[in-house]
Amino acid sequence: MKKYNVAIVGVGAVGIEMLRCLKQRNFSLNQLRLLARSDRIIQVDGVDYKVEAVSPEKFDNIEIALFAGTEGEKGASVLFAPEAVKRGAVVIDNGADFRLEEGVPLIIPEINRNRIKDHRGIIANPNCTTIQMLVALNRIFKQFGLKQIVLSSYQAVSGAGKKAAVSLWEQAERVVEKNKGVYFDLIDKKVKPNPDIFPSQIVFNVIPKIGGLNEYGYTTEEWKTVRETHKIFEDSSIKITSTCVRVPVITSHSESVYFQVKDTVGLEDIKSAIKDSEGVAYSEDAVLPIDAEGKDEVFVSRVREDPFNKNCFWLWCVSDNLRKGAALNTVQIAEELVSSGLLG
Amino acid sequence: MKKYNVAIVGVGAVGIEMLRCLKQRNFSLNQLRLLARSDRIIQVDGVDYKVEAVSPEKFDNIEIALFAGTEGEKGASVLFAPEAVKRGAVVIDNGADFRLEEGVPLIIPEINRNRIKDHRGIIANPNCTTIQMLVALNRIFKQFGLKQIVLSSYQAVSGAGKKAAVSLWEQAERVVEKNKGVYFDLIDKKVKPNPDIFPSQIVFNVIPKIGGLNEYGYTTEEWKTVRETHKIFEDSSIKITSTCVRVPVITSHSESVYFQVKDTVGLEDIKSAIKDSEGVAYSEDAVLPIDAEGKDEVFVSRVREDPFNKNCFWLWCVSDNLRKGAALNTVQIAEELVSSGLLG
Repeated sequence: MKKYNVAIVGVGAVGIEMLRCLKQRNFSLNQLRLLARSDRIIQVDGVDYKVEAVSPEKFDNIEIALFAGTEGEKGASVLFAPEAVKRGAVVIDNGADFRLEEGVPLIIPEINRNRIKDHRGIIANPNCTTIQMLVALNRIFKQFGLKQIVLSSYQAVSGAGKKAAVSLWEQAERVVEKNKGVYFDLIDKKVKPNPDIFPSQIVFNVIPKIGGLNEYGYTTEEWKTVRETHKIFEDSSIKITSTCVRVPVITSHSESVYFQVKDTVGLEDIKSAIKDSEGVAYSEDAVLPIDAEGKDEVFVSRVREDPFNKNCFWLWCVSDNLRKGAALNTVQIAEELVSSGLLG
Repeated sequence: MKKYNVAIVGVGAVGIEMLRCLKQRNFSLNQLRLLARSDRIIQVDGVDYKVEAVSPEKFDNIEIALFAGTEGEKGASVLFAPEAVKRGAVVIDNGADFRLEEGVPLIIPEINRNRIKDHRGIIANPNCTTIQMLVALNRIFKQFGLKQIVLSSYQAVSGAGKKAAVSLWEQAERVVEKNKGVYFDLIDKKVKPNPDIFPSQIVFNVIPKIGGLNEYGYTTEEWKTVRETHKIFEDSSIKITSTCVRVPVITSHSESVYFQVKDTVGLEDIKSAIKDSEGVAYSEDAVLPIDAEGKDEVFVSRVREDPFNKNCFWLWCVSDNLRKGAALNTVQIAEELVSSGLLG
């Protein structure tokens, strides 16, 4: 069995999860190279790993380069992905920079693995919020068509990077510390945020604004759910709209998804389509984000019909934003590349 | 100026807030009687108050009886509201027991104060989630008509009573305590919940199920948003549907509201209607629940149009669920009773 030289660029929350996914899934590794801003040693699950400062030459002999780059680390893939491609690597980029570019396949393997072959060196990994929603809706879309999607999200802080996750934790520690021994009614729940990470306090709060504001008053995150859905499903007639909200959860995004299908179908048809979907774990009981952490599936529950609107339904979907929403999906794309013989 | 004998039944989160609202708003009080399960002394904002065990006789001479009874204390109003009415009091009930009954006005003063006069002794206060949404939508409904509402909520734990609020706080304390000095990556975020209060952990988690399951897989909370909206707006043609979710916020509910109006209108018409609404504070910047605590207004922000669907819009509304969502609205109803001369 052929073994591959793989690089991971970025060793934050997503990069480390990429490393875990490669190990846990026994990816056929020859050499694994970890690249980031500076040389250092990191420990992951008790094992030490050498991290090297990224430079174009570090991609020599690399066959697959996984770029972790979340929004917070924008730039790494813009600077180095073309360098890696020039040296013969296929880049799979978790960042947002190339997702909507012509000639860059935007891949969720369960949905459009057939598009991987169209790449010209760079394959993009969709936004976490988009991935789990589309995995949940995939067979519904393919079987019945989708007319409209109305999404409200409950997004974990680790989606904004490891610093953001640590920031929520530290805010929780600070609120608890400063109110030690204080009678509940007199608790002061406010803490000063670190504005570089979150503009506002996130512990005991929610923030209905992820990313900057853009056309129509949508945030960049909200536009991602629209444009990436259109590209992945290859159907820009779907009327999709969203409100993306950060909640004080460390890992796993939750989504309240209301949707209308084109065909006339009943609730049982919808449930069957979901149960038959690749990558989905269906549940009658509500699934909570804390229970999805570290798991691979997209958990779908609370599937119900709107009694007042024909062909309209709700679902609640939860998934680990660092795994299926980022690292796992990227590694799955790498696996597809290998198994389809596209790497030669 | 005539002064009134007022009773508050229940001294949990809502009952105490009722007391505060009466004081802060200089309600024309003669005697104030606090009633609950047992005799005791409670301290509110540094002042001691005597609480008496509730019994039918305790309503003698009471002219207005405010029942705090949230879902957690179901029963008090069923048992004692008719007794209070029999003794000549007008009951304003914050609980859910009488809301949908024929002959019981369900009142949000900004919307339907004209219905107060229809009461036969009991006036009901709507559910917190319904109140803030309808205050936000009131003028939009009256000016342009509402075809559809799709609501996803982000509800604070104090909506489930003071015990629930304390429970979130204690869970936060326990998680912080048990991970003291633990490196972030090794933190164990799980805590055992008290299943009498929440079936699942709520700190660092969200729970997409408030109340029991009912017809069509809706929860009781979700049905409240539907049926109370129909009753308050006196229009059961509005296609309203919701997903109600508990989030780890102590006080103030947030709502992601998507709606379609009947008329053809633009974004500026919608914004104007909101700005002109009684009880609403409009903001261009996103308003967060922690900033709404202790305030009276319904804060509306992130008002935008859906670029793909005509006459469809979003708004984000935040309000203190214990004040406008419960105690304040109840006291406002009492004020209307007095000012309209309905108490004689």
